[in-house]
Amino acid sequence: MTLGRIAGILDSTSGSREARLFRAAHGIVFGAAILALALDTVPRFAESHGALFKALMVLALVLCAVEYALHLATAPAAAYWRWAVSPAGIIDLISFVPMAVALAVAADSRVVNLFGILWLIKLVRYSHGMTILARVIPGVGEWLLNVFLAFLVVLFAAATLAYLFEGKTQPDTFGSIPAALWWTVATLTTTGYGDTTPVTPAGRMLAGIVMICGIAVFALWAGILATGFAEETRRYNFLKTWDLVAKVPLFKSIGAGTIAEVTRLLRPRETPAGAEVMHKDEPGDCMYFIVSGEIEIQIQPRPVRLGAGDFFGEIALVVDGPRTATAVATTPCMLLVLDIVDFRALISREPDLVKVIEAEAARRMVQTGPGRAV
Amino acid sequence: MTLGRIAGILDSTSGSREARLFRAAHGIVFGAAILALALDTVPRFAESHGALFKALMVLALVLCAVEYALHLATAPAAAYWRWAVSPAGIIDLISFVPMAVALAVAADSRVVNLFGILWLIKLVRYSHGMTILARVIPGVGEWLLNVFLAFLVVLFAAATLAYLFEGKTQPDTFGSIPAALWWTVATLTTTGYGDTTPVTPAGRMLAGIVMICGIAVFALWAGILATGFAEETRRYNFLKTWDLVAKVPLFKSIGAGTIAEVTRLLRPRETPAGAEVMHKDEPGDCMYFIVSGEIEIQIQPRPVRLGAGDFFGEIALVVDGPRTATAVATTPCMLLVLDIVDFRALISREPDLVKVIEAEAARRMVQTGPGRAV
Amino acid sequence: MTLGRIAGILDSTSGSREARLFRAAHGIVFGAAILALALDTVPRFAESHGALFKALMVLALVLCAVEYALHLATAPAAAYWRWAVSPAGIIDLISFVPMAVALAVAADSRVVNLFGILWLIKLVRYSHGMTILARVIPGVGEWLLNVFLAFLVVLFAAATLAYLFEGKTQPDTFGSIPAALWWTVATLTTTGYGDTTPVTPAGRMLAGIVMICGIAVFALWAGILATGFAEETRRYNFLKTWDLVAKVPLFKSIGAGTIAEVTRLLRPRETPAGAEVMHKDEPGDCMYFIVSGEIEIQIQPRPVRLGAGDFFGEIALVVDGPRTATAVATTPCMLLVLDIVDFRALISREPDLVKVIEAEAARRMVQTGPGRAV
Amino acid sequence: MTLGRIAGILDSTSGSREARLFRAAHGIVFGAAILALALDTVPRFAESHGALFKALMVLALVLCAVEYALHLATAPAAAYWRWAVSPAGIIDLISFVPMAVALAVAADSRVVNLFGILWLIKLVRYSHGMTILARVIPGVGEWLLNVFLAFLVVLFAAATLAYLFEGKTQPDTFGSIPAALWWTVATLTTTGYGDTTPVTPAGRMLAGIVMICGIAVFALWAGILATGFAEETRRYNFLKTWDLVAKVPLFKSIGAGTIAEVTRLLRPRETPAGAEVMHKDEPGDCMYFIVSGEIEIQIQPRPVRLGAGDFFGEIALVVDGPRTATAVATTPCMLLVLDIVDFRALISREPDLVKVIEAEAARRMVQTGPGRAV
Repeated sequence: MTLGRIAGILDSTSGSREARLFRAAHGIVFGAAILALALDTVPRFAESHGALFKALMVLALVLCAVEYALHLATAPAAAYWRWAVSPAGIIDLISFVPMAVALAVAADSRVVNLFGILWLIKLVRYSHGMTILARVIPGVGEWLLNVFLAFLVVLFAAATLAYLFEGKTQPDTFGSIPAALWWTVATLTTTGYGDTTPVTPAGRMLAGIVMICGIAVFALWAGILATGFAEETRRYNFLKTWDLVAKVPLFKSIGAGTIAEVTRLLRPRETPAGAEVMHKDEPGDCMYFIVSGEIEIQIQPRPVRLGAGDFFGEIALVVDGPRTATAVATTPCMLLVLDIVDFRALISREPDLVKVIEAEAARRMVQTGPGRAV
Repeated sequence: MTLGRIAGILDSTSGSREARLFRAAHGIVFGAAILALALDTVPRFAESHGALFKALMVLALVLCAVEYALHLATAPAAAYWRWAVSPAGIIDLISFVPMAVALAVAADSRVVNLFGILWLIKLVRYSHGMTILARVIPGVGEWLLNVFLAFLVVLFAAATLAYLFEGKTQPDTFGSIPAALWWTVATLTTTGYGDTTPVTPAGRMLAGIVMICGIAVFALWAGILATGFAEETRRYNFLKTWDLVAKVPLFKSIGAGTIAEVTRLLRPRETPAGAEVMHKDEPGDCMYFIVSGEIEIQIQPRPVRLGAGDFFGEIALVVDGPRTATAVATTPCMLLVLDIVDFRALISREPDLVKVIEAEAARRMVQTGPGRAV
Repeated sequence: MTLGRIAGILDSTSGSREARLFRAAHGIVFGAAILALALDTVPRFAESHGALFKALMVLALVLCAVEYALHLATAPAAAYWRWAVSPAGIIDLISFVPMAVALAVAADSRVVNLFGILWLIKLVRYSHGMTILARVIPGVGEWLLNVFLAFLVVLFAAATLAYLFEGKTQPDTFGSIPAALWWTVATLTTTGYGDTTPVTPAGRMLAGIVMICGIAVFALWAGILATGFAEETRRYNFLKTWDLVAKVPLFKSIGAGTIAEVTRLLRPRETPAGAEVMHKDEPGDCMYFIVSGEIEIQIQPRPVRLGAGDFFGEIALVVDGPRTATAVATTPCMLLVLDIVDFRALISREPDLVKVIEAEAARRMVQTGPGRAV
Repeated sequence: MTLGRIAGILDSTSGSREARLFRAAHGIVFGAAILALALDTVPRFAESHGALFKALMVLALVLCAVEYALHLATAPAAAYWRWAVSPAGIIDLISFVPMAVALAVAADSRVVNLFGILWLIKLVRYSHGMTILARVIPGVGEWLLNVFLAFLVVLFAAATLAYLFEGKTQPDTFGSIPAALWWTVATLTTTGYGDTTPVTPAGRMLAGIVMICGIAVFALWAGILATGFAEETRRYNFLKTWDLVAKVPLFKSIGAGTIAEVTRLLRPRETPAGAEVMHKDEPGDCMYFIVSGEIEIQIQPRPVRLGAGDFFGEIALVVDGPRTATAVATTPCMLLVLDIVDFRALISREPDLVKVIEAEAARRMVQTGPGRAV
C-alpha cells in the first residue's frame, strides 16, 4: 500500500470507499473507547469489566499514535512541520500523548477521563457534515456575538437587581452578586432548577421579566441561525449539484448563462447497486438524469439499459400519470433528480430543454407503446 | 359492496366521502380504546368500569383483525405477500396479534399496555397531514443529524467535566459519568428538573455554559426545520393547486410557459353546499375561480348561477370597493382563490389574463348597473 | 351626536381620532377592572380597598351594558338580530349579564372572577393588531395541528413507557398512565418541574429522549409559524401601502403594470404635527413621499412648504451625502418612506421614475445652491 | 491633540484605529469596574481585596467624568445643551454623578451597586453591532407587542383559572390571583421552577395547556424575529457593500442599473497586513476585488503587486481548479469577495462583467503559464 493511498484514506473529505470504511471503523473504535471511559467511572462496572475497558482505551491510544505517525509520514516532505503545528496535528498529538502518560504513571483516573474528551473532538473532526455546519456560524457570528453580549448585560443587570431585592431575605443564595448569578442564569435560559427562587414581590416581578427576556434571546438566536442556515444550505446544495450538472451533456448545451438557474432546480441522489429507483404504477413526481452508473428500465419485451448522460422517468411528468416501468440500478449510480414542481417551472424558463425532454418522451411512448415506456 | 370499493375506503390517501367517514370512525374507535387502556391502569377506574374498558379494547382488536383481513383480500392477487411484508402490513399485524395473545393468556396487564402504543402508530398512519409532514424531515435530515451529533458531543463532554468538578462533593449524583449524564441532559435541554444541581463554582460555571449551548442547539434545530418546512410547504401547495388550475379553461389559454407562475398565486378552497362565499357590502380582498360545483350570485332582479370554469368577485378588485352581491354555494364547490395582493402582482406578469378579467368585470357592471353586479 | 358617529367610534377597525380615544379609554377602564378583580382576591387588599374594587367592577359592568345597547342601537334596522348572534355580540352580552347576576345574588366571589376572564377577550377584541395576528394562524393551521397530533402521540407513548418503567418503583407518581402524563407533559415541553423524576436507568433514558423530542416539537412549531408569519407580514404591508401609493400622482404615472413592484419597496409612516422628519447634517438613508399633510423644509432664505403628492429628502440619496435641510411636519402627515437600499434597486427596475426624482433633485440643488436644498 | 481629533475618537461609529483602541480600553476599564462591583458584594473578597475594588470603581467614575467633560467640550458651540439633554448625554451624566455622591456620603453599598448597572448601558452604547441589532426590533415591534399582549392575556386567564382550581387546596401558593401569577409565569415561559405545582386534576390539565401555549408564544416570537432579522441583515450588508463597490472602477462601468444586483452578490472582508488571503494548491471557492491596500501574488520568477481596483483569485473560478499562487496582504486591505456560487449566477446576469474577468484570467494564464498565474 503506497503512502499516497494511505493519505487518501486519511483525508477526511475523501468520498472513496476505503476512506469511508476507515472513517466508520475510526468512529466505532473511538465511540467504544469513550463508552469504556464513561462506564469505567461506575465502580460496579469498573470491578467487573475493568480489564476490558482498559484494553479498549489502550487500543484507542495505539490507534491515535499510529494515525499520527501515518499523517506525518504521508505529509509532503516540506510540510511535516506545517501539519504538526496545524490544529488537526495538535489535536491528534494531544489526543494520545497526555493520556498515555497519565495511564503510564498510574495517575488519578479522573485525569485520564479529562483527556478522553479530546477523543470527542477527533470523532467530530472526521464527520463530513460537521465541517459544513461549521460554515454557518462564522457567517452570522457577528450577530450571534451581539445577542450574546446583550444576554450578558441582561444577566448581570438582573443578578444585581436580584441581589438588591432578595439579598436580605435569602442571604445564602442571593447574598452577593456572584451568588445571585446562579439563579439568574438558570432563569434567563428558562432552565429553572427551582433550587433557589425569589420570595419578595419585587424579586418575583423581576423573575417574570427575566424569563421573558430569556424567551427573546432564544428567539433572536433562532432567527439569526435560521437566516444563516438557509443561506448556507443554498450555497452548499448549489456547489454539490454544479459539479454533477457539468457531467451531463444535455445541460452543457443550454449555455453557461442559464446553467446556474438549472443547477438550483436539481438535487443529487446516490443509489447503491440493485436499488429500485422507481416502481411501475406508482405515482411519479420527479424525473432522473444519470451522472454515472447504469440503470435498467424493466420494459417488455426486453429491458433497456441507460448510462451516464441519459435521463428517464420523464413520461410520468409529461403525461401526468403513474410510472410506466420499474427502474433498477445495476451499478452504484449518481443521479440528478428534477422534481415535478421544478419541471413545470422549467417550462417557462428553459423551453428548449423541456422540448428535448418532451420529444424523447414522445419517441419512447411511440416506440414501445404507451404504458410500456419509462 | 365490491372489493374495489372497500379498497378505496381503506386507502389512506383517498378523499372520497366514504373513506373520510371510515377514517373518522377509525380514529374514534382507536382513540377510545387508547383512553380505555390508559384509564384501566388507574385502580379506582379499573374496578368501576373495568368491563367497559376490556370491551373497548377487544372491539379495537377485532377491528384491527377485520381491517387486516380486508387489506389482504383487496390486495391484487400477486401482491398479498408484498403488502403483508410492507411496513403498513406489519404494523397492522402486530397491532392485534401480540395484544390478543397477551389478553388471551391473561398475562400481566402491563404487557397489554405496551402493545397499545402500536395503536398510536395506526392512528397516525391514517392521518393525511402526517404523511406530508414526514416529507420535511428527510430533506433536512442530514443537517438535523449533524446538530444531533454536536448535541451528543457537548452532552458527553459536559457530563465528563461535571463528573470531574462535582464527583467528590456529590458522589451520589455525580459519582460517575453515566450518573452525571442525568443532570447534563436535563440542563442541556433547558428542562432543569433541579433534583441535582452543581454546587462548586466550577460546576456552576459549567452549568451556565451548558444552558447556553442548549439554547444554541435549540435555535439551530429550529432554524433548520424552518428552512425545510418553508421549502416543503411551497412544494405541497404548488402540487395541490396545479391539478385544479388545469381544470379552469381560462388558465389553460395562458400557455404552459407561465401557468407555473400563476399556480403559485392561487390557493384552493373547499366550500360545503349552502355556505356563503362572500357577503354584499363587505370589503373584498380576493376573487374566485370555480373548479367544480355551482355558485349562486344573489343579484336583482334574479340570481345568476355560475359553474365550473367561471369566476366571480373580481369587481371588488377592479374598482377597489366592497362586494356588490352575496355569493352562496348551491353545491359543494372547489374554488381557487386569487388574493388582491397577487391580483395586483398579476397585472404586470400576466396583462392578458388581467384584461380578460377586467373586461368581464366591465361587462357585468354595465349589464346590471354598478352596485348590482358581482 | 348622531348614531352614525357613535357607530364609527365603536368600529374597532376605524382609525379616526375619536375611535382611538374610545379604544384607549376602553382599555384603561377594563385593565383597571381586571386589576381590581385580581387584587380583590388578596384578603389584605380586599379588606382595605374592597369598596374601590367593587366600584371599578360595577363601572366596567355598566360600561359593558351601555356599549352593548349602543351597538344594538347603531346596527342597521334589519341587522339587530344578526349582530346579537354574531361572536362579537355574544361576547359583549356575556361580558356583563352573568357577572351582574353573580354580583347581584351575592354568590361566591370565585364565580365573579371566572366571568372576569371574559373582559380579557373584550380587551383583545379592540386590539387592532390582534385581529391581524389572527390571520397567521389559519394559514398554517393544518400544519400546526399535525405537529400537535404528533405531540400528543409522543406524549401518550412516553407516558405509557414511563408507567411501564417507573410504575413499580414510584407507584404514587407513575402508578397509572394518567398519573404518568403529569411528568411526561412537564418534560416534553421542557418545563421540568422536578416534582417527579424517573429513577430507573430505563426511565431516565426515556426522559432524555422525551426532552429531545420536546425540542424538536418546539423547533418545528417555530419553523411553521415563522413561515406563516413572513408570508402574512408581506401581505399586510403590501395592502397597507397600496392604498397610500394610489394617492401619490407620481406613482400613478408609472402604470398599473409596475405599481405593484414599487408598492413592495415603500413603507408607510405616520407623523404627528410638529415632529422633525429629518435633521440637517445627519446622514440620510431614505426619502419621503407625502400622501397627506404638510411638511416644512427649513431652508434659507425662506422655508418651503410641500403638500400631498410632493417628495423630499431625495438629495441625500442622489448625491450620497448628509441631509441638506431640516424637515418638520406642520400638520399630522402620512408619508411613504423609500429606503436607500430600495432606491438603488429601483434604478434598474424603474429608470423613468428615478429620472424624475433625480431631475427634481438637480433642480432643487441649482435653485438653492447645494447644501441648501433638501 | 485637537478637539476635533478627540471628537473623532469619542464617536462610537468611527472606524479609525484610535477610536477602536479607545473603545477597547473603555470596555476593559468598565468591564473590570463592573467585576469589582460584583466581587465587592462577596464578604470574603471584599475583606481581602476591598481596596482594589474601590480603586477600580473610583477610576471608572473619574473616566466617566472626563469622558462627559470631553463630550461637552467637543460638541459644536450651539449644541452643548442639545447633547447634554440627549439620551447619550443623560446616560453619561447619571453614570457617575449619583454613584459618586453615594460613595462620598458613605451610603449603603447596595445603592452603589444599583448605579453600577448604568455602566452596563455605557458598555453597550459603545458596541457597534448593538446599535445595528437595535434596528431589528422597531421593524417588527408592532408584532412583538401584539404577541406580548396575547402572552399577558393568556397569563392572566391562566392565573385566574389556577386560582379557581387550586385556591382551596393550596391557599398559600394559589390563594389569590397575584399569588397564582407566580406559578403561571414560570409555567408559561416553560421555566418550571417546581416550587409550586398544581395538584388537582383540573389544575394539572390547565398546566399542560399553559405549557403548550408557552411553546406557541416562544415559537411565534422566534418566527417574528427571524423575519425581521433576515430583512435587516440584507439591508445592512447591502449598505456596507455598496460604498465599497463604488470605489472599484470595474463595477462602475457596468452602469447604475445593475450595480445594485452586483452589490447583493459581494461581501466585504477586512485583512490585516501580512495575512495570507489565499494559499497555493488549496481549493478556490471565491475571487477578490481590492478596494484599498496592496496584495502580493507570490508567483515565479518575481511576485506581482496588485492595488486598489485590481482583482485576483479568478483563475480558480474560471478553470475550476486549485489556487495557482499564494496571495499575501502587504498592507491592511479592504477586499470584496465574490463567492463561486455567485460568480456562476453572475454569468447569466452580467455576461459583460464576466467576460472582462475571464479575459484577464486568460491573459494571466498565457503570460505566466497555467499553474503559475493567480
